Amino acid sequence: MEQSLFGQFSVMDIAEDYLKQKKRAVDAYLEKILPGGDEYPPIIYQAIRYTVFSGGKRLRPILTIAACEALGKDEQRALPAACAIELIHNYSLIHDDLPFLDDDELRRGKPTAHKVYGPAIALLAGDALLTMGFHQLAAMPPIDEDASRKLLIIREISQAVGTRGMIGGQVIDLQSEGEQVGVEILNYIHSAKTGALLTACVRVGGLLANASSDEMLHLTRYGRSTGLAFQIVDDILDVEGDEKLTGKTTGKDAVRGKATYPAVVGMKRSKELVEEMLHEAVAAAELLPRKGGMLPQIAHFITKRRL
Amino acid sequence: MEQSLFGQFSVMDIAEDYLKQKKRAVDAYLEKILPGGDEYPPIIYQAIRYTVFSGGKRLRPILTIAACEALGKDEQRALPAACAIELIHNYSLIHDDLPFLDDDELRRGKPTAHKVYGPAIALLAGDALLTMGFHQLAAMPPIDEDASRKLLIIREISQAVGTRGMIGGQVIDLQSEGEQVGVEILNYIHSAKTGALLTACVRVGGLLANASSDEMLHLTRYGRSTGLAFQIVDDILDVEGDEKLTGKTTGKDAVRGKATYPAVVGMKRSKELVEEMLHEAVAAAELLPRKGGMLPQIAHFITKRRL
Repeated sequence: MEQSLFGQFSVMDIAEDYLKQKKRAVDAYLEKILPGGDEYPPIIYQAIRYTVFSGGKRLRPILTIAACEALGKDEQRALPAACAIELIHNYSLIHDDLPFLDDDELRRGKPTAHKVYGPAIALLAGDALLTMGFHQLAAMPPIDEDASRKLLIIREISQAVGTRGMIGGQVIDLQSEGEQVGVEILNYIHSAKTGALLTACVRVGGLLANASSDEMLHLTRYGRSTGLAFQIVDDILDVEGDEKLTGKTTGKDAVRGKATYPAVVGMKRSKELVEEMLHEAVAAAELLPRKGGMLPQIAHFITKRRL
Repeated sequence: MEQSLFGQFSVMDIAEDYLKQKKRAVDAYLEKILPGGDEYPPIIYQAIRYTVFSGGKRLRPILTIAACEALGKDEQRALPAACAIELIHNYSLIHDDLPFLDDDELRRGKPTAHKVYGPAIALLAGDALLTMGFHQLAAMPPIDEDASRKLLIIREISQAVGTRGMIGGQVIDLQSEGEQVGVEILNYIHSAKTGALLTACVRVGGLLANASSDEMLHLTRYGRSTGLAFQIVDDILDVEGDEKLTGKTTGKDAVRGKATYPAVVGMKRSKELVEEMLHEAVAAAELLPRKGGMLPQIAHFITKRRL
């Protein structure tokens, strides 16, 4: 606690305050755009709200906001697209948890949507969130009166969560269960399954702020490194994490024979990789205006906080 | 066969030729935009292609093209959005057939996607088709250099397949299984589950052709009536249809206690309703330029051909 302003604790404190504040803004905006559980048919809105308001950290929308802010534009400009991404992220959580896929019973410490509403409604709630996400993006307020910018954002996100991104990674993840996979496949799974959307989050922040192509490259490098670090940390937590803190059932990856970094490259190397990715992310962010604003701190938070 | 040019058979012949020709154009465009089954990961593209190229009639994209043509613009202008709608329609077919929902084993006379690829891949293939549909819409060629028109189209479609359209209808359909429902709920289910997207198809054709607001109203009226007729015919076919011709397992609605028109208003009234809806659709279409072009014939085809 007696460390300098640039020491570990201070960085974490600053990041934590920022994340808390932005989470509140994201939650308030989501509250505004999501229909209430009394609209018809009630159960679908209830299932959507149950999932969306189950205590997520809002990391993805916050990355969009932070990238936009680093480039000199404000939170208000970023919120609509950022929250659309959060809706799409929540779709992926519901579908991933379904019995066909990961068959998870616990998410953020609460029963998963299909445990509460049944698999049919959970499936449809996921479909609805994906659809709503794109609807929000198409219907959001103008960005500098430039409609084509919104189309670019929709392309960016739909690419990241499509067969060349999240869905592709999910497919290979499924097919690799119980198989011996090398580090190449493991990298594909993780960069496609989680990395692509995390990268899109920061790139969308850039698009919102009319970033130059150099700035887009730095954002991309930051996004990729942060995304990979995030996923390796996730894998590590599945082995070493505290279920009460992570809100997830631990040890599930091993039981299902999932391809994970600790399993493929070992725990020691996994932790080294997290450090390397953090270093890379911070270096990329610091090439941006305002030394990347809060982006370096967020990368720190992602890698340190959860270990 | 000796009937006049305005007699039943001639109308049907003209419509059939038109539908065949447009189906070829739609199939060719879909072939062009869908990645091959050799792309990575192959299984997801195979499942997508298996579903998309399983012999659908392409009614939805053809409605978009026909509406656009009625308003004086050509097929080329309509194809990209029309085919994006077809991708989204195919997503809904895959998810509807899943064990959680309708648990159908047969679609268009072939085993459903989840029977061939397993439910996990089928679920993801559906997710991928929905995502791809929106990606295509955002990435399609410019329409009169007016990016905001594309955003309107994305809003139109995402609204039609969202919780206030297709998904809402699906939810109430599910909840009504085995229940006694009145004609009001039945109308809601059908107009939301199939009517909303069919209406969006013709409205998107209008948006592509820069339709006036009066023209949009006629298109909407045409779409609603045709959509309702289509669904009542579907219900009738489930009772009276020939499995070999419809490509679907018949009698399933009754077994599952589904809300259908024959069950709620009787077979005689159901057939009268089809006639009334056809009349209404044709009247609305004929208020458009070129007397609605092929739209009246398509309405005829939908209501007559399948009975």
